[in-house]
Amino acid sequence: MNLWEQNIRKVVPYVPGEQPQQEDRIKLNTNENPYPPSPSVYQAHQSADVGSFALYPDPSAGELVKKLEGYYGLEDGQVFVGVGSDDVLSLAFLTFFNSEKPILFPDVTYSFYPVWADVYRIPYECVPLDDSFHICPEDYARPNGGVVIANPNAPTSMGLKRKEVEEIIRSNQDVIVIIDEAYIDFGGETALPLLKEYENLLVVRTYSKSRSLAGMRIGFAMGNKRLIQAMNDVKESINSYTMSQEAIRVGVAAIDDEEVFQQNLKKVIRTRERSKEELEKRGFIVFDSQTNFLFARHSQIPAEKLFDALRERRIYVRHFGSERIHNYLRITIGTDEQMDILFRALDEEIKNFY
Amino acid sequence: MNLWEQNIRKVVPYVPGEQPQQEDRIKLNTNENPYPPSPSVYQAHQSADVGSFALYPDPSAGELVKKLEGYYGLEDGQVFVGVGSDDVLSLAFLTFFNSEKPILFPDVTYSFYPVWADVYRIPYECVPLDDSFHICPEDYARPNGGVVIANPNAPTSMGLKRKEVEEIIRSNQDVIVIIDEAYIDFGGETALPLLKEYENLLVVRTYSKSRSLAGMRIGFAMGNKRLIQAMNDVKESINSYTMSQEAIRVGVAAIDDEEVFQQNLKKVIRTRERSKEELEKRGFIVFDSQTNFLFARHSQIPAEKLFDALRERRIYVRHFGSERIHNYLRITIGTDEQMDILFRALDEEIKNFY
Repeated sequence: MNLWEQNIRKVVPYVPGEQPQQEDRIKLNTNENPYPPSPSVYQAHQSADVGSFALYPDPSAGELVKKLEGYYGLEDGQVFVGVGSDDVLSLAFLTFFNSEKPILFPDVTYSFYPVWADVYRIPYECVPLDDSFHICPEDYARPNGGVVIANPNAPTSMGLKRKEVEEIIRSNQDVIVIIDEAYIDFGGETALPLLKEYENLLVVRTYSKSRSLAGMRIGFAMGNKRLIQAMNDVKESINSYTMSQEAIRVGVAAIDDEEVFQQNLKKVIRTRERSKEELEKRGFIVFDSQTNFLFARHSQIPAEKLFDALRERRIYVRHFGSERIHNYLRITIGTDEQMDILFRALDEEIKNFY
Repeated sequence: MNLWEQNIRKVVPYVPGEQPQQEDRIKLNTNENPYPPSPSVYQAHQSADVGSFALYPDPSAGELVKKLEGYYGLEDGQVFVGVGSDDVLSLAFLTFFNSEKPILFPDVTYSFYPVWADVYRIPYECVPLDDSFHICPEDYARPNGGVVIANPNAPTSMGLKRKEVEEIIRSNQDVIVIIDEAYIDFGGETALPLLKEYENLLVVRTYSKSRSLAGMRIGFAMGNKRLIQAMNDVKESINSYTMSQEAIRVGVAAIDDEEVFQQNLKKVIRTRERSKEELEKRGFIVFDSQTNFLFARHSQIPAEKLFDALRERRIYVRHFGSERIHNYLRITIGTDEQMDILFRALDEEIKNFY
């Protein structure tokens, strides 16, 4: 090993779902929205002044921040925006988790949490979900350096009630509690109303799922002004200009189309409930989902076998190797047509199996 | 202070140049390119498939990486892309500067270097420029945890010869040496040919200056595969999808317009040389510049006074408060028309002064 290699930071990176490029693939593996962005996004893109791309964007992304504060009924200084919610969450870890005590998060949850903890040298402990894969709020009532909870949780798809989230926050008022609401728009109970009562609460959201804008990289955090200021200070210590002109522009526009937004949510939820039934008919055990995906295992057939068989057919779902969930598949809700192709494929694979 | 505040990371953020929004302002304060992006960028923007914004971008930004590798005659795996060169440099600091020995950079240089060192808890020492504001390569031949050199240097505008850069690298083969070439296209001697000989060299570039795309946030690093892999691993531990579909698309397109690119560089360089003479005529002492800005002080009038007077006239240049350079102004090269407005304003201010 060269001497210069000794100082390279050692990490075990997160592995994102694959991004297959074939035209005819059915992509149900990274929880994208099957519907296109709203018409106002098309319009905003097309009317952009490309000449002005030569100039730096507003480093505070003020227009987008203001739009979100207005939409969510917050005050000036309560919103922080970043390059997808991963950027926002990663920055929140770096900003808020500087205790010597371990931070806490569930053993089965978004697999980026331990990766961020590792890269920033933050001690952590995983709190096991119960046997039915639920988060037990009382398990978080112990000394820690911070708490992060995905609600609804991924990949389990199940949400906590607001009362349960509040229980976690209430018993952790000396640390920052991050509620990662990437999937909240698909039916969960948001922690937003708790912002008024708990100044140690940070709620994180993304445009990548409900707003059909994964390709533009927009996420945001909501919290009290002291927390948002702290995040801005750390962000200004890393990269002043994170949000491109296009991201700011398109992010603002997406908020204007409330009707299309609500329609798309309804369509995804309807397809999700139908898909749950269809999977159950085919011998799957499926959790109740408040997200845009289903988490399911087949009563007979190993998940990995189904994953491989579907992949052969260019139907991409997600399979995680970790022990407690290695027999589950995470299936993103696509269009009804895409789901029907999945069901037909499953019919054939299940027939082949017996 | 609340208990939760104790664990917030303490930082002194970088202060970017202001982004005044008045229509009639003359903006010569953040080293943007006065010319618009190339026609292929307009074309790429307009033909984007907005519907596909619902999908995640390629996390490796493969198309853009490949384009840059081709353009610079590098092999697969020698380019890393990020959200502007600040994102790339910040990540390089986090990835490569993990020694207990201090990293070295000049006392007068890009003021983000000490900020990154602070936020990531990297020890550092500033190496003074000599009395004529030159970097002395021999000053870097001492034990350290890494070296970062802006070449040409900012805000001094002066470049090192390749031989001098090589001297710094040669005497530091046990650590990573980062050469920040944000301004190299305006006339400096690039370290790129040294990549073949020195595996501890990382060259960082940006689209924000020479390529007229500050608003889109694109930067990149070039180095040997081991270094680029290490950066990708750390990046995948923070944010898988940093480059938006639009940034990838536009970044690829910009490389296609070599002719327009070269023409714009020539225009900026011609205006720079003329501007240097005009400033000298008016009593300024101006360094030789290999960048798209001039670093100058007036023989009689304090820089702060001129800065304020120009600002009153909505002409924005940059003034830094730090001791060695507080009597200098950094003036971005605009169009000839913009520079003429500056010169007329200076004529009046200088007349008022006497």
